[in-house]
Amino acid sequence: MTNLADSANPTHDAMGPKQVTDSYSNPWHTTSSTEVYRNPWIQVTEHRVIRPDGKPGIYGVVAFQNLAVGVLALNDEGCLVLVGQWRYPLGAYSWEIPEGGCPLGQDSLETAQRELREETGLEANSWEPVLRMHLSNSVSDEAAVVYLAQSLKQGMAEPEGTEQLMVRWVRPAQAWEMIQQGLITDAISVAAIQHLLLLRPELRMPIPSMI
Amino acid sequence: MTNLADSANPTHDAMGPKQVTDSYSNPWHTTSSTEVYRNPWIQVTEHRVIRPDGKPGIYGVVAFQNLAVGVLALNDEGCLVLVGQWRYPLGAYSWEIPEGGCPLGQDSLETAQRELREETGLEANSWEPVLRMHLSNSVSDEAAVVYLAQSLKQGMAEPEGTEQLMVRWVRPAQAWEMIQQGLITDAISVAAIQHLLLLRPELRMPIPSMI
Repeated sequence: MTNLADSANPTHDAMGPKQVTDSYSNPWHTTSSTEVYRNPWIQVTEHRVIRPDGKPGIYGVVAFQNLAVGVLALNDEGCLVLVGQWRYPLGAYSWEIPEGGCPLGQDSLETAQRELREETGLEANSWEPVLRMHLSNSVSDEAAVVYLAQSLKQGMAEPEGTEQLMVRWVRPAQAWEMIQQGLITDAISVAAIQHLLLLRPELRMPIPSMI
Repeated sequence: MTNLADSANPTHDAMGPKQVTDSYSNPWHTTSSTEVYRNPWIQVTEHRVIRPDGKPGIYGVVAFQNLAVGVLALNDEGCLVLVGQWRYPLGAYSWEIPEGGCPLGQDSLETAQRELREETGLEANSWEPVLRMHLSNSVSDEAAVVYLAQSLKQGMAEPEGTEQLMVRWVRPAQAWEMIQQGLITDAISVAAIQHLLLLRPELRMPIPSMI
């Protein structure tokens, strides 16, 4: 829209850059902020705001103390590890890639390595960040990073006290079926598995070729 | 792990089903719950719990009053519509598919149709739910559904007072590049666009074939 307006504007050269900058800048004005809840994982703040249309309102924001870290652990046979656990906020069982929280400012790769080892007993020689996301940006600032872990070696799992886990191996093509059937619904896992299948289309084959 | 234990257990036939059922059931016990914040969009409750390892703890849960609804609007030329807006919780500008909130219990298809019309002026003759997710299941119960909208017709946009939007059309292959470059980070949009590319591999071609 800005570009169209600019092209029709005789002062385009002078006005253009400023107008473009304004379109991408913050149209909200915050008049006051009150913390209403905090625990070791989240902080909830209610902001009094002037909205983009100039009217007053409130905005409750959930700030996360951790970066969410997910691990696509792919073994030499082209299988992915999934962990199953009860998710308290959902009141439901969930199959996911291994995940954990990395305190902001700390090394997310170390978190990825620790969570994979604790949840599955796996260690990996090859680590690569492949995807970054914001999980729920209408209400929270929660960010996530996904690592691809390869050259795996099996050790012993050591789950945390908050975790009671099951572990299973699936082909990525089977994980894609589980997404389409609603058997994998966790957003980090859904996006990570889709991402892997787009990066490595050969993994969509249900049975490896026998060449 | 359960399966391995079962196979070594002489009472496998009798014990197996019960053990499997227990593994999928809730290992948390809630002793008390206190609402600590509520606004029209979220409710935050602190639960006192006994964790899966038997130790006491707390769990702060953010319950959402809306289902998140996303729309993959794909035109006859194979282009997707993206909307750009400032996301207050992130403090950043974000390019996304059209999205909105559907009050729990109401018809998410109507929300999808209204949000697409308000944000882009588009109407569609064909609507299909293609993906369901939970966005942040370590802390919240927020769920999302994504619709694929086709056979589009252009009308006039009517953004809400909380929205100041830009609209652009991209090829799905270009949206995939934007995901890989970190220019699209919204989890609903990332998963929705990747889902579309897996359902319709021909859309990965940057330029349509001229057959």
